[in-house]
Amino acid sequence: MECLIIDKKMNYDGSQISSLWAYNLADIQEDSIIAFRGGCDVKIEHMIDLEDKKQGDMIFSTDMVHFIIEHFDSTDLKLVYARQRLFTAIVKEILSEYRNDIIRQGDDLFVDDKKLTVSIASTSAVSQKIHFGINVIHDFYGSFEDLGLGNNDVAGVMEKIAKRYYNEFTDIEKDLRKSRPLDVI
Amino acid sequence: MECLIIDKKMNYDGSQISSLWAYNLADIQEDSIIAFRGGCDVKIEHMIDLEDKKQGDMIFSTDMVHFIIEHFDSTDLKLVYARQRLFTAIVKEILSEYRNDIIRQGDDLFVDDKKLTVSIASTSAVSQKIHFGINVIHDFYGSFEDLGLGNNDVAGVMEKIAKRYYNEFTDIEKDLRKSRPLDVI
Amino acid sequence: MECLIIDKKMNYDGSQISSLWAYNLADIQEDSIIAFRGGCDVKIEHMIDLEDKKQGDMIFSTDMVHFIIEHFDSTDLKLVYARQRLFTAIVKEILSEYRNDIIRQGDDLFVDDKKLTVSIASTSAVSQKIHFGINVIHDFYGSFEDLGLGNNDVAGVMEKIAKRYYNEFTDIEKDLRKSRPLDVI
Amino acid sequence: MECLIIDKKMNYDGSQISSLWAYNLADIQEDSIIAFRGGCDVKIEHMIDLEDKKQGDMIFSTDMVHFIIEHFDSTDLKLVYARQRLFTAIVKEILSEYRNDIIRQGDDLFVDDKKLTVSIASTSAVSQKIHFGINVIHDFYGSFEDLGLGNNDVAGVMEKIAKRYYNEFTDIEKDLRKSRPLDVI
Amino acid sequence: MECLIIDKKMNYDGSQISSLWAYNLADIQEDSIIAFRGGCDVKIEHMIDLEDKKQGDMIFSTDMVHFIIEHFDSTDLKLVYARQRLFTAIVKEILSEYRNDIIRQGDDLFVDDKKLTVSIASTSAVSQKIHFGINVIHDFYGSFEDLGLGNNDVAGVMEKIAKRYYNEFTDIEKDLRKSRPLDVI
Amino acid sequence: MECLIIDKKMNYDGSQISSLWAYNLADIQEDSIIAFRGGCDVKIEHMIDLEDKKQGDMIFSTDMVHFIIEHFDSTDLKLVYARQRLFTAIVKEILSEYRNDIIRQGDDLFVDDKKLTVSIASTSAVSQKIHFGINVIHDFYGSFEDLGLGNNDVAGVMEKIAKRYYNEFTDIEKDLRKSRPLDVI
Repeated sequence: MECLIIDKKMNYDGSQISSLWAYNLADIQEDSIIAFRGGCDVKIEHMIDLEDKKQGDMIFSTDMVHFIIEHFDSTDLKLVYARQRLFTAIVKEILSEYRNDIIRQGDDLFVDDKKLTVSIASTSAVSQKIHFGINVIHDFYGSFEDLGLGNNDVAGVMEKIAKRYYNEFTDIEKDLRKSRPLDVI
Repeated sequence: MECLIIDKKMNYDGSQISSLWAYNLADIQEDSIIAFRGGCDVKIEHMIDLEDKKQGDMIFSTDMVHFIIEHFDSTDLKLVYARQRLFTAIVKEILSEYRNDIIRQGDDLFVDDKKLTVSIASTSAVSQKIHFGINVIHDFYGSFEDLGLGNNDVAGVMEKIAKRYYNEFTDIEKDLRKSRPLDVI
Repeated sequence: MECLIIDKKMNYDGSQISSLWAYNLADIQEDSIIAFRGGCDVKIEHMIDLEDKKQGDMIFSTDMVHFIIEHFDSTDLKLVYARQRLFTAIVKEILSEYRNDIIRQGDDLFVDDKKLTVSIASTSAVSQKIHFGINVIHDFYGSFEDLGLGNNDVAGVMEKIAKRYYNEFTDIEKDLRKSRPLDVI
Repeated sequence: MECLIIDKKMNYDGSQISSLWAYNLADIQEDSIIAFRGGCDVKIEHMIDLEDKKQGDMIFSTDMVHFIIEHFDSTDLKLVYARQRLFTAIVKEILSEYRNDIIRQGDDLFVDDKKLTVSIASTSAVSQKIHFGINVIHDFYGSFEDLGLGNNDVAGVMEKIAKRYYNEFTDIEKDLRKSRPLDVI
Repeated sequence: MECLIIDKKMNYDGSQISSLWAYNLADIQEDSIIAFRGGCDVKIEHMIDLEDKKQGDMIFSTDMVHFIIEHFDSTDLKLVYARQRLFTAIVKEILSEYRNDIIRQGDDLFVDDKKLTVSIASTSAVSQKIHFGINVIHDFYGSFEDLGLGNNDVAGVMEKIAKRYYNEFTDIEKDLRKSRPLDVI
Repeated sequence: MECLIIDKKMNYDGSQISSLWAYNLADIQEDSIIAFRGGCDVKIEHMIDLEDKKQGDMIFSTDMVHFIIEHFDSTDLKLVYARQRLFTAIVKEILSEYRNDIIRQGDDLFVDDKKLTVSIASTSAVSQKIHFGINVIHDFYGSFEDLGLGNNDVAGVMEKIAKRYYNEFTDIEKDLRKSRPLDVI
């Protein structure tokens, strides 16, 4: 697995959730997690979650940190959703170092009853992908500001989250290579 | 999915990790999470983790809460390991209400540098299973005592954890039934 | 699994075979079987069966009962085809209560050498789907009329078929959760 | 797929459900359905269905026709159970030519409220298997006798059932090779 | 599996890599390998390999032999890539009868440091496909000419390769139906 | 993937084909290819190929090079067999540098009409494994001697083969992460 932190700002417009975006962007030919900072403005044709689409929800933020995860080991929807929830729990673990009253509900994090994050997961015929975004600042929703995190902290937290998922994945791959199959009653 | 809390004490000896234990115990014919309280003494022939087996590790505790999870939707090792890590994160989230300095490393939880939990996951040809145990009291390892949890709190926490996983699983199953497949670049 | 019977008339134009139609229609976030009555006029761009497409076959009927089944547990073509054949056999079992000389050939039913039904099954990257339609009346093909079923019987038969599949599926899910893996010679 | 009808009598003792029995018996290196006639006496260690095992059920009959199906295309429990139900429906279709009031409940057939058949399905790490047995004569349970089928009819019906499943499977394999993937809403 | 050798010339423009092309062309409803001779001019919208697409590579040749392989047994990317490499090795084995210094690097063959072949593999939601082309003549790249193969040899070599893959596949399917599952330490 | 060359001699008795042998031997927690030199004497209870078992075949040699491959990415029989054939082709490619008239038939290599190799592949519930052995010397079967390879060449060839498979696997994993899904006709 490759972990890439992009220094320059980039907006998330929904096209980054497409399979093979990592290869197109940076010739990455491994499973990957890519982190970057920038606005978020998802066009309707890139909306993966039909609930958002039906409700005509805008997914809009001027400043977020984004994580794009891609796995090629299967195209099993259940696996990508379990990974998305695990990633959400990891983000919560890291952000809880800054405020310990963050609430996780499924793939959403909340602070002061305000939604802090957006996320989606799905598959194509060739890969699984996850997008996860956290507001850096926001007038209405929760953001890093609410956690007491300033502009200078963003890059550090972003990298910490990406590396923690990278390490978790690597560790899982090792663990499953030392377990015997189960007996059966 | 079925969530079963067993009232009477039962020891975990490693046989409960076998596939179809839930059916044998309680005629359960759904995916399930079963929680109970009792000692832990895993016989060498039931050890699933070869690392423990090689090291001749004893897995022994006089008083634990145990969770046994079984899924029949696939026999994919990667899926059961992702679910095991997610479960571990859920346990941490709940225990963090009692002490907010619990550390998660993969499928282990630590408090005051003491290991609080044991866990294993694997598959047979018919199902995936996870065992997760938390010490209630322990002379050497971490335990509920270190979290300030007394004997009367055990049943409540045990039930809360089991129900949280049940809810998470139910929620995931719903979420994956409203997501479009990905575009491809 | 959810079983939905739609009261008002709706035409089948081929778009209903798309993945996630059930969510779009009725916010259904489970596997589902949906039954409704209406005409059938499949546009060429919605034709899934290339044989029909090559032959320029019109799939047209003014009055049918339709069943739309969606499963999210895998995207295995072999599984959706086995389920389609099982569904066809279920329909035959129920219609045989009205005339006992109905013939099943694969996914087609015949009465008096006239084709009574149309069906197709396929997968996308996120779900498996089956469409199955039975003529209520038809000038040329077989229909409920040939079985002695009148306008007032239609709703009852439609519901009976949908519920029978629902029960069969539920029963299978239970049965597979009590079977040991096989020995090997 | 290979369809083998064995002329000489053979008893079913539960060992025939093991994977690779067909290869061991007759060097068959294809998916297969094998039919034979003989008694049925399943030893407890060969019981696959834990419900039978728990209830200490004897599975005993002096004269049955047996069908043993093996597929190597996947080890998906859901697929082998869908195939088992489809096979049961096929048997009912053929036996209904002799009496039209046979009832199917899941993988069981009944006549005059008497159980006519036994069946089990499961997987190993290398194949899926189904056993299906129908009583030829029986003092207590339903049998071919109740359908008006005499000793001379047995071989013919046995062969007809085996060939019908062979044809159904062959036909499915063809059908799934002409269907486009689904659109998505 | 079906092995079809097409006598008349046909160009490869990239559309032949689409799933179900074999059915559309020749009503083939089995897994298949189809061989034909003709030019190669892949339009950018049919390029499957993003590396070619990014580099604006032309895939152009006036005279090639082409092999189109389609399997419906799963949509596993890893399986189709293992098969593509095995096919490449088979081609090398046959061409090595003409010159024994052909080099294989992954899915490419080289002679005199000149690339002799093009290949791509991928999946849709319904099938796996492989395209493999070998230059018959070429001004710049390697070709049959470099192997000492003349115009009259082309049809024979083309047929030999297609049949060898057909036989290899058939042989594998048999071998996997006589192997016991593994023990575990 | 890890590539391990063992310096000291070790016999192959069939137990090495068990899943997790690599972890037990050397704490390897990756997919792996392990090469070593030693005798071969497979006990009947470790025979995976039922053909050998039925024929009471001895698999015996006093001096071989052995390769043990383990993959954890799926338990698909078709994938491990495709990989076994690809590995056989790789071995042939390397040995052909010493004699260019080696014949491959499926998973066997022959020289002067004498069998040079033994191989088996299978799966457990947790991994896929391949064993491949080549005679170094043999009175009756083909061996390195027939290729003009002496005692001093053995280690070098053994390492070359193991590394070539390692490189092929690594290269495949990269290639499949840059291919778009297929269009469909």
